Amino acid sequence: MRPSHRAADETRSIQITRQFTKHAEGSVLVEFGDTRVICTASVEERVPPFLKGKGRGWVTAEYGMLPRATHTRSSREASRGRQDGRTMEIQRLIGRALRSVVDLEALGERTVTLDCDVIQADGGTRTAAITGSFVALADAVRYLLERKKVRKNPLHGQVASISVGIYQGVPVLDLDYAEDSEAETDMNVVMNDAGAFVELQGTAEGHAFRIEELQAMLDLARGGIEHLLRKQRDVLGLPG
Amino acid sequence: MRPSHRAADETRSIQITRQFTKHAEGSVLVEFGDTRVICTASVEERVPPFLKGKGRGWVTAEYGMLPRATHTRSSREASRGRQDGRTMEIQRLIGRALRSVVDLEALGERTVTLDCDVIQADGGTRTAAITGSFVALADAVRYLLERKKVRKNPLHGQVASISVGIYQGVPVLDLDYAEDSEAETDMNVVMNDAGAFVELQGTAEGHAFRIEELQAMLDLARGGIEHLLRKQRDVLGLPG
Amino acid sequence: MRPSHRAADETRSIQITRQFTKHAEGSVLVEFGDTRVICTASVEERVPPFLKGKGRGWVTAEYGMLPRATHTRSSREASRGRQDGRTMEIQRLIGRALRSVVDLEALGERTVTLDCDVIQADGGTRTAAITGSFVALADAVRYLLERKKVRKNPLHGQVASISVGIYQGVPVLDLDYAEDSEAETDMNVVMNDAGAFVELQGTAEGHAFRIEELQAMLDLARGGIEHLLRKQRDVLGLPG
Amino acid sequence: MRPSHRAADETRSIQITRQFTKHAEGSVLVEFGDTRVICTASVEERVPPFLKGKGRGWVTAEYGMLPRATHTRSSREASRGRQDGRTMEIQRLIGRALRSVVDLEALGERTVTLDCDVIQADGGTRTAAITGSFVALADAVRYLLERKKVRKNPLHGQVASISVGIYQGVPVLDLDYAEDSEAETDMNVVMNDAGAFVELQGTAEGHAFRIEELQAMLDLARGGIEHLLRKQRDVLGLPG
Amino acid sequence: MRPSHRAADETRSIQITRQFTKHAEGSVLVEFGDTRVICTASVEERVPPFLKGKGRGWVTAEYGMLPRATHTRSSREASRGRQDGRTMEIQRLIGRALRSVVDLEALGERTVTLDCDVIQADGGTRTAAITGSFVALADAVRYLLERKKVRKNPLHGQVASISVGIYQGVPVLDLDYAEDSEAETDMNVVMNDAGAFVELQGTAEGHAFRIEELQAMLDLARGGIEHLLRKQRDVLGLPG
Amino acid sequence: MRPSHRAADETRSIQITRQFTKHAEGSVLVEFGDTRVICTASVEERVPPFLKGKGRGWVTAEYGMLPRATHTRSSREASRGRQDGRTMEIQRLIGRALRSVVDLEALGERTVTLDCDVIQADGGTRTAAITGSFVALADAVRYLLERKKVRKNPLHGQVASISVGIYQGVPVLDLDYAEDSEAETDMNVVMNDAGAFVELQGTAEGHAFRIEELQAMLDLARGGIEHLLRKQRDVLGLPG
Repeated sequence: MRPSHRAADETRSIQITRQFTKHAEGSVLVEFGDTRVICTASVEERVPPFLKGKGRGWVTAEYGMLPRATHTRSSREASRGRQDGRTMEIQRLIGRALRSVVDLEALGERTVTLDCDVIQADGGTRTAAITGSFVALADAVRYLLERKKVRKNPLHGQVASISVGIYQGVPVLDLDYAEDSEAETDMNVVMNDAGAFVELQGTAEGHAFRIEELQAMLDLARGGIEHLLRKQRDVLGLPG
Repeated sequence: MRPSHRAADETRSIQITRQFTKHAEGSVLVEFGDTRVICTASVEERVPPFLKGKGRGWVTAEYGMLPRATHTRSSREASRGRQDGRTMEIQRLIGRALRSVVDLEALGERTVTLDCDVIQADGGTRTAAITGSFVALADAVRYLLERKKVRKNPLHGQVASISVGIYQGVPVLDLDYAEDSEAETDMNVVMNDAGAFVELQGTAEGHAFRIEELQAMLDLARGGIEHLLRKQRDVLGLPG
Repeated sequence: MRPSHRAADETRSIQITRQFTKHAEGSVLVEFGDTRVICTASVEERVPPFLKGKGRGWVTAEYGMLPRATHTRSSREASRGRQDGRTMEIQRLIGRALRSVVDLEALGERTVTLDCDVIQADGGTRTAAITGSFVALADAVRYLLERKKVRKNPLHGQVASISVGIYQGVPVLDLDYAEDSEAETDMNVVMNDAGAFVELQGTAEGHAFRIEELQAMLDLARGGIEHLLRKQRDVLGLPG
Repeated sequence: MRPSHRAADETRSIQITRQFTKHAEGSVLVEFGDTRVICTASVEERVPPFLKGKGRGWVTAEYGMLPRATHTRSSREASRGRQDGRTMEIQRLIGRALRSVVDLEALGERTVTLDCDVIQADGGTRTAAITGSFVALADAVRYLLERKKVRKNPLHGQVASISVGIYQGVPVLDLDYAEDSEAETDMNVVMNDAGAFVELQGTAEGHAFRIEELQAMLDLARGGIEHLLRKQRDVLGLPG
Repeated sequence: MRPSHRAADETRSIQITRQFTKHAEGSVLVEFGDTRVICTASVEERVPPFLKGKGRGWVTAEYGMLPRATHTRSSREASRGRQDGRTMEIQRLIGRALRSVVDLEALGERTVTLDCDVIQADGGTRTAAITGSFVALADAVRYLLERKKVRKNPLHGQVASISVGIYQGVPVLDLDYAEDSEAETDMNVVMNDAGAFVELQGTAEGHAFRIEELQAMLDLARGGIEHLLRKQRDVLGLPG
Repeated sequence: MRPSHRAADETRSIQITRQFTKHAEGSVLVEFGDTRVICTASVEERVPPFLKGKGRGWVTAEYGMLPRATHTRSSREASRGRQDGRTMEIQRLIGRALRSVVDLEALGERTVTLDCDVIQADGGTRTAAITGSFVALADAVRYLLERKKVRKNPLHGQVASISVGIYQGVPVLDLDYAEDSEAETDMNVVMNDAGAFVELQGTAEGHAFRIEELQAMLDLARGGIEHLLRKQRDVLGLPG
C-alpha cells in the first residue's frame, strides 16, 4: 500500500497552469500533487560565447528551490555563494531534456532560458520541472512565431518526465516524498512523444536493481509519460 | 493622472493569503496589485553565534527575486555567486522592521527567518515583503504559542510598510513600476500600530525634496499604513 | 548631558584636509572628531557597460574600513572574500548622494570613483564620507576643468551629510560612537545647498519615533548641514 | 568500423596499477586505453557533520582533471574559483557507486575519500574512475583491517563501470573520445558483482533511443563489467 | 644619477609615527619618502585552530592597498572578492619576518595581527610595512607587559627591511617607484639586529645577476638596515 | 648525517621524462627523488588583455597539488573555491623563472602556460617544477619552430632551480621533506646557464643566517644547478 493510497501505476494529480506570471514569454505553474514548480521561459536575443556567429540558438535551464520549499529550511544558495551539486545536476538535466525537442537552427541566434523554481517540494521536482518547462517553452515559441521572429517552428516534438522506483519491493510510478525517502531504487525517465528515451537516470544506493526490475519500472514510466504528454497537449490546446 | 487611474491617496488592491505553502510555520502570499511576494516564516531552534547563551532569540530576513519576476530576465544571484547590494539592503531593512515589534527575550533562544521571494515585480516589493512578513511571523508565533514553546506572546505590535513619492510633481501613495521608474522622489515608510515611525528611507536622485513635500508624503503614508494594518488584522482574525 | 559635553545642536570639531595623498585627482582627509576618513576621487576615461555610448558619465563610490579602525579588530573584507551588507548599503548611499549634485552629461563619458576608507571610526563614518567626498569630487572637477576635459562645470550644487538621533530622550546632532551605540533612533540626513533633502534614512530598532521627534531631528540636521556646507566652501576657497 | 578497429563488444586495453603514489592508504593508476586516472583513497578519522555520533562512516569522492588532460587546455577550477556542473555530477556519481558496496556501520566513524584525478582524457573518465577507485578503496580497507581499526570487512561486494553507446547506428562498448564525441546516445552503467545495476545514466541529446537499443546496450555493458570485475580481482589477488 | 638625486647608499627620508590611530594596541604610520603605510597591531585572546591548546601564540599579518594609493586606481580587493597573489605573497612575508623575533611561547595563547595598509605607494611598500610593523608590535608587547598579561618579554630582537637593486647598472639602496619600475634586479632584504638574514628575496626578470652584484647589494642592504634599526630604537626610546 | 644518507652536496636522483601525456605541446614528468611533478606546456594563440596588440607573447604558470600528494590529505583548492597563498606564490615564481629565458617578442602574440601538478610531494616541489617546466617549454618551442609559427627561437638560455638549506647546522643541497621540515633555513635558488641568479628566496623562521652561511649555500646551489642543466640538455638531446 502506497502512503498516498494510489495504485502502483497511478500518478499524482497533475495540474499545469499557463500564464502564471505576466512578464515572461512563457510562464507555467506545474503541480505534481503537492510538488509545485514555477517554470518560466525567457527569450533573449543573444547566445553564449561558444555559439556566436554560428546561426544557431540555445536552450538552457536554471533550477532553484525557495529555502522553505521543504520540511526544514535549507540555506539560500545566493547567500551561501554557490549552487550545490544537486542543483547543477538538475539544471543540466532539464536543459538537455528540452534541447532534445528543439531545432536550434530554426530557433536562430537567440537563447531561451527555462527558470524552474520550486515553491513547494514533495518529491519529483525535476520531473515536474521538465514537464512544465516544455509547456513554457511551447508558449515562448508561439510568441516567436506570432511576432515572425522565427519562420519555422523550432519545436519538433514533445518531452515529459516522470519518476519510477521500487518501494517496499514493488515498482511504483511518480514517487512522492514519503516514498522517495524510503525507496530502494529511484529512476527518472525522460521520454518524447515518439515513445523513445531522452534520458534515463537510475540510482540504487544500497540495493542494486536487476534487469527485470528495470523492465517493470520502464513499463510504468511509459504509461506515466503518455499521461503527461496528453496533459501538455490539453493545456496547450493541441490535438490529442 | 496616475497611470493606474488611482487617486493620489489610493493603494493598489491588497491581497494577503495565509497558508500559501504547507511546510513553513508561517506562509503568506502578499499582493500589492501585480507585485506578488511569497513570505515564509521558519522557526529554528538555534541563534546566531553573537547571541549564544544570552537567553534571547533573533528575527532575520532574506530577500530574493525570481530571475523573470521583472520585464527582462536578470541573472540568478545563486549562479552569479553573490547577492547584490540592493538585495542586501532590502533584506536588512525587512529584518530591522520585523524586529521592531518582537520581544526577543520572550521569543527565547530561537530564530525566525522570514524568506521573502518575489515571484512577480511591479514596484514596491520591499514594502509588500514587510507587510506580508508580519502576517507570516504572526502565524509562526501562534505556532509557538500553541505548542507552548513560548509562554508569553513575543509580538508587542504590528508593523507594515508602504511607499510614497513625488510623481509629476504630485505626492502619491503606493507607487507601481510605471510611477516608480519616473518618480522624482521615492520614500519607503515603515510604521507600527502606534502610529510611530520604525524606518524612513527617502531618496532623491536629481531632484531633492523640500520639507513641505516630505510632510505631504508622510501624511499619505500614514493613511496607507492604517489601511495595511487593518488588512493584516482582518486576515489574522484580530479585532479591528 | 552628552558624553562629549557638547550642546545638543553642536557638531564635533570638523576638519577637512585637501591633497592628503598625491596620486588622486581629488584627495581629502575628513575628520568629524575622532572619526577619520580618507576620501579620494579618481577620474577614469570609461563608463560602466550600461552607459556606453550614451554621452553621459558616472559617479560612484566604494567604502571600506581598515580592520582596526574600531574598538575590536574586524576581519578584512578582502580576505573574507566579500563586502558585507553594511558596506554595500553605505557605498550605494554615498554614490547616490554625490550624483545628486552632478550633471552627468556635462561630465562626459568618464567615471569619477569616490573611495572612502575609514582609518579611525567613532560614529558617523558615512556622513563624514559624504561630506569629505564632495570636496574630493570638487577637486577632481577642477582638474577636469583646468585640463579642458569638460567645458561646463558638471557640479551644480553642494551636498553634505550629518546624523541626528534621540539620545536619552533628547534629540541631538552628529552622534559619536558613545551616543550612537545607545541611541533610541538614528537618522542620517543628506541635504544640498538649496536646503532640500537628498536622502533621509531613519531607523528605530525598538523605540519608534513620532512625527514631532522627526521634526525636531530635522531641525537639528538643517543647522548641522549649513555648518558643513560652510566648511566645504572655506576649504575650497569658494565665496561663503 | 570503430575508429580504434575494436569489435563492438571489445573494451580498450585495461590496466590497473596499485601503489602508484606512496602516501595514500590506497593509490591506483587506472588506464582505459589512453584515458589515465589516478585514484587515491584517503582514510580520515572523522565524519561529516550530518553523521557525527551515529556510529557510521562515510565514503565520498572528488574528481578533477589536469588542465591539459584534454586536446585544448581548459582553465583550472581552483583558479576559476569553482567546480563546474560536470565535475560535481561526476564526483557525486563516483561517491554513490562506491558507497553501494560498503557497509558504513562496519567502517566505523571515519571517512574514506576517493580522489580521482584525470591526467589524460580520451573518453570514459568517470567509468575508469569508478573502476579504479574500487581497487584503491579495497587497499584502504585492507590497511584498516591489518591495523585492526575495523573488525569486520566493510566491503560487501565489487563495483565497476563502463560506457556503452550507439555509434553510427551500432551499439558499442567502452567508447573512446573519437566515438563519444559523435555518438547518438551515451550511457554510463555501474554494476556490482551480483550482476545488478547500481547506477544507469543514459543521455540522448537529439536522437532518442528505443527500448530495443537500450536492451542491446545493457547486454554489451554486462559483458564489459564482467571483464572489469575480473581485472579488479586479478590485481587485488582475489579468487577469480 | 638617481631620479631622486640620492647617493647610491642613501635611504629616503624615514619617518615613524607612533599612536597614529587610537583603538589599536600598537598603531604606527611609517613613511619611506612618499611611501606611507599604516601598521596596526591588534591583540586577540585566541589562536588559529592549528595552535589550540599548545600553549603558544601566533603573529600574523595582513596587507592591503587603498585603491588610489597608486598612479592609476586599482580595483578594490574586497569588491573583486579575492586577494591577489601579490597581496598574499607580501602578507606572508611580513608575518614570517615578524615571527622571527618573537618567542611564541612567551606570548601565550593569543594572536597579534599586524594590519599593513598602504595609503600612498611610491615603491618599497613591503619593506616599509615590515619596518613599521616591528614598532607597532613592540607597542602591543608593551601593552601586554604593562597589563601583566605576559610575564616575560616575548620580543627577543629587532627586525627591519629594505630593498636594494641594480638601477642603470649601479647597485642602489631603497628604490623608489621611478627606480623600481626600471630596475634590472630588485631584492628585498629582511635582517635582524644581530646582522643576520631573516629573509632574502631577489628577482631578475630578464637580466640575471652575478654573485659580485649580489655581494654589492647585500653590502648596501646592511647599511640601510642599520639605519632603520636605529630609527626604530629612537622612536621607541630604546638605548641606541 | 642526512636522513637519506646523501653527501651534503648531492642531489636526489633526478629523472626527466618527456612526452608524458599526449595532448600537450610539451609534457614532462620530473622526479627529484620521491617528488614527482607533471609539467605540461600549452600553447594558445592569444595573450592576456594587458598585452593585446603589442606584438609580444606571454609565458605563465599554474601550480597545483593533488589532495593526497602529501602525508595527510589536504582539501582540494577547486572545492574550497580558492587557491591559497602558497600556491599563488609558487606559480608566480615559476612564471617569472621561465620568462627570464624567453624572448617574448620572438614568441609572438601567443601564450605558453606551464601547468605544474604535483602528484607526489617529498620536498622541493617548486624547484622540480621549474626544472621540469623548462624542458616542457623547450618542447613547446620546438613544436612552434617545426610548424614555422615562430621564425626565431624565442629561448635564449636554460633555467633550473634547486633548494639549499641549513640542516642540523650543516649546509646541504636539495632538501627532501625529512630535512625541509626541520631545516633552520631554506633557500630556493633559480639560476640560468650563464651562472647568474634569476631568483633567490631564502627564509629563516627563527634562526637567521649569516653571510658566510649564505655563501656556503650559494656554492652548493651552483653545483646542483649545473647538474640539473646537464640533465635538461641530455634529455633534450642538446650538446653537453
